[in-house]
Amino acid sequence: MNRKYQARIYVTLRPSVLDPAGTAVQSGLSHMGYENVEQVRIGKYVELMLTADDEKSAKEQLDKICDQLLANPVIENYRFDLVEVATMVGAN
Amino acid sequence: MNRKYQARIYVTLRPSVLDPAGTAVQSGLSHMGYENVEQVRIGKYVELMLTADDEKSAKEQLDKICDQLLANPVIENYRFDLVEVATMVGAN
Repeated sequence: MNRKYQARIYVTLRPSVLDPAGTAVQSGLSHMGYENVEQVRIGKYVELMLTADDEKSAKEQLDKICDQLLANPVIENYRFDLVEVATMVGAN
Repeated sequence: MNRKYQARIYVTLRPSVLDPAGTAVQSGLSHMGYENVEQVRIGKYVELMLTADDEKSAKEQLDKICDQLLANPVIENYRFDLVEVATMVGAN
């Protein structure tokens, strides 16, 4: 437990799921004159810091965290980027 | 107006702004046993397709769209990635 990672998680609706919020944004943009904007989809973006033994462990934990709490696997997909930001020397 | 871009927009709360939703997620994760997770911040992720003359024009329009509709500049920051996905030959 001596490596610190920054995770950036993107949760999006599955392509087959309707996105009323995205449709509303697109309609709003169209009224504002942006008729050149299409296919607006709204998702969630989550940043967090995670302490783990190694990258593999960090990825496994993030998969569980996304499946259990951040995303609804029935209607949403997720993906994440992981960046190691620090190694705590001497810590355990 | 003959180039098509995919934009991925990330809207985040400014660092000085409290994020109760992020705190709730962190607390939930802690109760689920993930005590190694910190600094959870929740933002919005928006994907859209934009037709524009060139990349400069697409970026200018996205800046306006974010400032006017997608982000609240008082409490939120935004950034975006832009990828050209198609050039419509012969269209105008």
